[in-house]
Amino acid sequence: MNKPILDKSMAITRGALPGSNKLMVDGVPFREVKLSGGEPPVRLYDTSGPYTDETAVIDIEKGLAQRRRDWILARGDVEEYEGRARKPEDDGLKPGEKLSVQQFNRSGLKLLRAKPGRNVTQLYYARQGIITEEMKFIAARENLGRSPFARDGNSFGASIPDEITPEFVRDEIARGRAIIPSNINHPETEPMIIGRNFLTKVNANIGNSAVTSGVAEEVDKLVWSIRWGADNVMDLSTGRHIHTIREWIIRNSPVPIGTVPIYQALEKVGGVAEDLTWEIYRDTLVEQCEQGVDYFTVHAGVRLAHVPLTADRVTGIVSRGGSILAKWCLAHHKENFLYTHFEDICELLKQYDVSFSLGDGLRPGSTADANDAAQFAELDTLGELNKIAQRHDVQVMIEGPGHVPMHKIKENMDRQLKTCDEAPFYTLGPLTTDVAPGYDHITSAIGAAMIGWFGTAMLCYVTPKEHLGLPDRDDVKAGVIAYRIAAHAADLAKGHPAARIWDDAMSKARFEFRWRDQFALALDPETAQLYHDETLPADGAKVAHFCSMCGPKFCSMKISQEVRDAAKGTNDTLSSAEIRAAMAKKSEEFKQTGGEIYLNTPAG
Amino acid sequence: MNKPILDKSMAITRGALPGSNKLMVDGVPFREVKLSGGEPPVRLYDTSGPYTDETAVIDIEKGLAQRRRDWILARGDVEEYEGRARKPEDDGLKPGEKLSVQQFNRSGLKLLRAKPGRNVTQLYYARQGIITEEMKFIAARENLGRSPFARDGNSFGASIPDEITPEFVRDEIARGRAIIPSNINHPETEPMIIGRNFLTKVNANIGNSAVTSGVAEEVDKLVWSIRWGADNVMDLSTGRHIHTIREWIIRNSPVPIGTVPIYQALEKVGGVAEDLTWEIYRDTLVEQCEQGVDYFTVHAGVRLAHVPLTADRVTGIVSRGGSILAKWCLAHHKENFLYTHFEDICELLKQYDVSFSLGDGLRPGSTADANDAAQFAELDTLGELNKIAQRHDVQVMIEGPGHVPMHKIKENMDRQLKTCDEAPFYTLGPLTTDVAPGYDHITSAIGAAMIGWFGTAMLCYVTPKEHLGLPDRDDVKAGVIAYRIAAHAADLAKGHPAARIWDDAMSKARFEFRWRDQFALALDPETAQLYHDETLPADGAKVAHFCSMCGPKFCSMKISQEVRDAAKGTNDTLSSAEIRAAMAKKSEEFKQTGGEIYLNTPAG
Repeated sequence: MNKPILDKSMAITRGALPGSNKLMVDGVPFREVKLSGGEPPVRLYDTSGPYTDETAVIDIEKGLAQRRRDWILARGDVEEYEGRARKPEDDGLKPGEKLSVQQFNRSGLKLLRAKPGRNVTQLYYARQGIITEEMKFIAARENLGRSPFARDGNSFGASIPDEITPEFVRDEIARGRAIIPSNINHPETEPMIIGRNFLTKVNANIGNSAVTSGVAEEVDKLVWSIRWGADNVMDLSTGRHIHTIREWIIRNSPVPIGTVPIYQALEKVGGVAEDLTWEIYRDTLVEQCEQGVDYFTVHAGVRLAHVPLTADRVTGIVSRGGSILAKWCLAHHKENFLYTHFEDICELLKQYDVSFSLGDGLRPGSTADANDAAQFAELDTLGELNKIAQRHDVQVMIEGPGHVPMHKIKENMDRQLKTCDEAPFYTLGPLTTDVAPGYDHITSAIGAAMIGWFGTAMLCYVTPKEHLGLPDRDDVKAGVIAYRIAAHAADLAKGHPAARIWDDAMSKARFEFRWRDQFALALDPETAQLYHDETLPADGAKVAHFCSMCGPKFCSMKISQEVRDAAKGTNDTLSSAEIRAAMAKKSEEFKQTGGEIYLNTPAG
Repeated sequence: MNKPILDKSMAITRGALPGSNKLMVDGVPFREVKLSGGEPPVRLYDTSGPYTDETAVIDIEKGLAQRRRDWILARGDVEEYEGRARKPEDDGLKPGEKLSVQQFNRSGLKLLRAKPGRNVTQLYYARQGIITEEMKFIAARENLGRSPFARDGNSFGASIPDEITPEFVRDEIARGRAIIPSNINHPETEPMIIGRNFLTKVNANIGNSAVTSGVAEEVDKLVWSIRWGADNVMDLSTGRHIHTIREWIIRNSPVPIGTVPIYQALEKVGGVAEDLTWEIYRDTLVEQCEQGVDYFTVHAGVRLAHVPLTADRVTGIVSRGGSILAKWCLAHHKENFLYTHFEDICELLKQYDVSFSLGDGLRPGSTADANDAAQFAELDTLGELNKIAQRHDVQVMIEGPGHVPMHKIKENMDRQLKTCDEAPFYTLGPLTTDVAPGYDHITSAIGAAMIGWFGTAMLCYVTPKEHLGLPDRDDVKAGVIAYRIAAHAADLAKGHPAARIWDDAMSKARFEFRWRDQFALALDPETAQLYHDETLPADGAKVAHFCSMCGPKFCSMKISQEVRDAAKGTNDTLSSAEIRAAMAKKSEEFKQTGGEIYLNTPAG
């Protein structure tokens, strides 16, 4: 009998973030933060799915509602079918060996694929001039509360409009500058878009390994990572039960799920890279297309001729997929079969609308190897492959490094934009130094913020465990938060009109001592309040006009409010005699009204 | 009777970092990491003082050895004197009130000041062509192991030589481009330099407040912060016992100590900004000069006419010192007394070699207020004041923001270099977004790395508690580590010749599975090993050719080593037939030598 690792009591975290509530507007979700002091509520992007909806009924064993299924069926270009038969090796089992983990019950789920000769990608629709329901959803989702403030960023040539319309979404997709990862067999998703003219996105990697981690733990990591802001999740499982883990994850995921199919293919050949074949790989793609994976990392750019370019590197090839394929190429003395079969892969992916994430198998694994010949040779190949996929109307994003010192980051973005015709860039970090294992969420958040500003569309997180071990729940949160910071800092610097309102709401709450509003607006409300309460736990401190840092006498915000009141209304140029006179008048007023009295601020 | 808060059993952390040892070369300290696999040891900059020297005898009650006293006396330009009488208000006591904390026994310490008419600053000596012992020490300290690798950074016009000589140090000091904070009454310091042509430095703020924290805790934070890499420490205490806490800190500090004297002056007038006077402030400066404070934050740039420029800000004036002085200016309708008495301050500081840290009292407290008229008006004033201090041969650094979105960071550096004649810039962060209280060590490490790259000489850390509470020990460590990462990433990107060897040693250890070397080389060896051991605790795992992330089959480093061996030695251009032939030959060799066998690496 199967061991019920997953059941209804599985400890996933539910409920809204403290001080926030789920706002649904025509089916589009937002995190809404209601404020005190007469301030309008702030509407934030919400990746967390129904798990943060207090009213939603969640049953992990049944999976999420299939919100997109009706949209997909209504387009009239898909058919239900039986699909590929399940095989023991899908879960890394030997023939006759039984599964020891509970299976997701798929009995109510019907597989879909494109009708013969049809292409069901969002890219295809976009180029036909069709605005899909997914595009409309995304337009509503991306706008948020647009800032009333001037836009003053530097977007390095991006084209971010004041308002995102469905037509703008369609046009960006049609130009290959954005993608909507949206496998027709993953209708549980809340559609999202990846492109440099939209909000910067964050990907979290989860997945077990041969050494550690189980099914329940990975589903929990999924829910946990989207709670803190992961827009996409990659399941990088490499041990046993890969198929089963993935099924549980996809059925319960409101965000697109990506994988690296070569990992599972390698499991199927007992871990011997040389034994990989196109047939085994293709069968794995079909298996995963049918399960509903939304994008595949495909290392088709690791060409035989590139491998010698890595010989003098400090850290060789550090991408798992890249090293597997390099080994295959060398052992067979043949061109990478993913490269030679690239059009066959396109033919398959267009039937399900699985997007390519063209893998950078030769990315640098140390700052010493950044921007070298191997890396850029592969990027050139990815540019070629992007053109091929575009001809097939298959959606593409391009993966990027890795480990890059700050002065070499911009070259990565500039080359990618040019070589890959502005296809969305999706980078891992980059880490800006190699010397801080245990803190690579920070070494890489620096690089991620910069490359996000320069134009990277999605930032793949790095956790504190990078280079040391498999991330646990705390590491997943630390990684997601660091990357949400990087992504938001990038949006601010790009001058994204939906970004700054959040910062300004926080700053205003800070200046007016609305402590509860500060906690509620925080990227992580729980930690913000916890840290505050460590030194001033009393409820009264939540309305105090100071905090434990400086105490009441030294609070700059308090003094500054008094100063502001005194100075307010005077002219803001410096040179005239009128100013001095006005200052003198204000100074008198200031003395008369008494500086030590708290101003009657909205929160006061 | 006094309560003995400090005694010999005080829990300060002693001993070297795991895997490192203290190396003294002609009295200059280094952190040396010995490596396995035939690799040469790596020599790293060491801020930690004798506390990490296993052989040093430390007695907190006696303070550190006064290594610089002989150097100072040998210059023949100082005299011993009695000094200012201690007053109850120095510790925030009311007349007649008794101290309730143990006093540092100063009976063996003689105060020094310049002989009448003499100037004892390092700047004065430098301009006289004198190379001091401090300059020689610094030259030896800054060189470290210079990298054998090509320098490929972008230093934005900095002038970093291949080798730091004592003459180069002297010349940079003489030009006002670097400072050596070195009060003659703090002879316990190991000399260090702050300037953009040297390694980027990190400052940690400690200090109690009216609400929390005590003497023992602050001394422990000092030792703890320099253990993790703080080059300087500011004591920002604002509550009672300010004088006593500072004495304990200075006597036990091998790094320069900075303060903001206006905080203590304000305590002396009962917290009423309007009651501040030049006489009380000057007396406080004398008190602190005599104790040995190495640099003073002086908010002389907050001019009366600047205050109205802050009226429409989102967050007004957020610098404590700035808000105190703005309030004073408004209440009296007078120019800031620090501005009007600036030359008087110069006259005092040159007698002790206390450096100016010209405070940015009008720095932005939110990204919304970054780079505004108030901020830059003050910067212009700081430029004027720098010229005045330079005329007096008093060392100066310039403080900078604060909260700045990424696209506005570079303007800060460019303006500062121009306005302040390349005087060292010393910035707080900057935070690149306001939305993540609890994580501002990360929001600001992004900005700190960037502005450090652009030319900032010292980065003032921000801890996770920023905006929420007073940092505890864990927060101090988190802040210092985040800023050491930022500083090192900046040095790497500048192409500093002493930076890259550390990264490359780590990367090489990583590629060769020398796990113990990776831990030992880590910025934080304890955390690196802890994280590794969480999933693979066994001793055998320390020599394993894989880790818990991918397991043995998927380890890219392992596969890559095999690939590297196979590919090595081939030509590194892509186009010729010879390459293909060589590849074929290598592929054959690869198959014959067997990919699954671990290579005989030095660590293997």
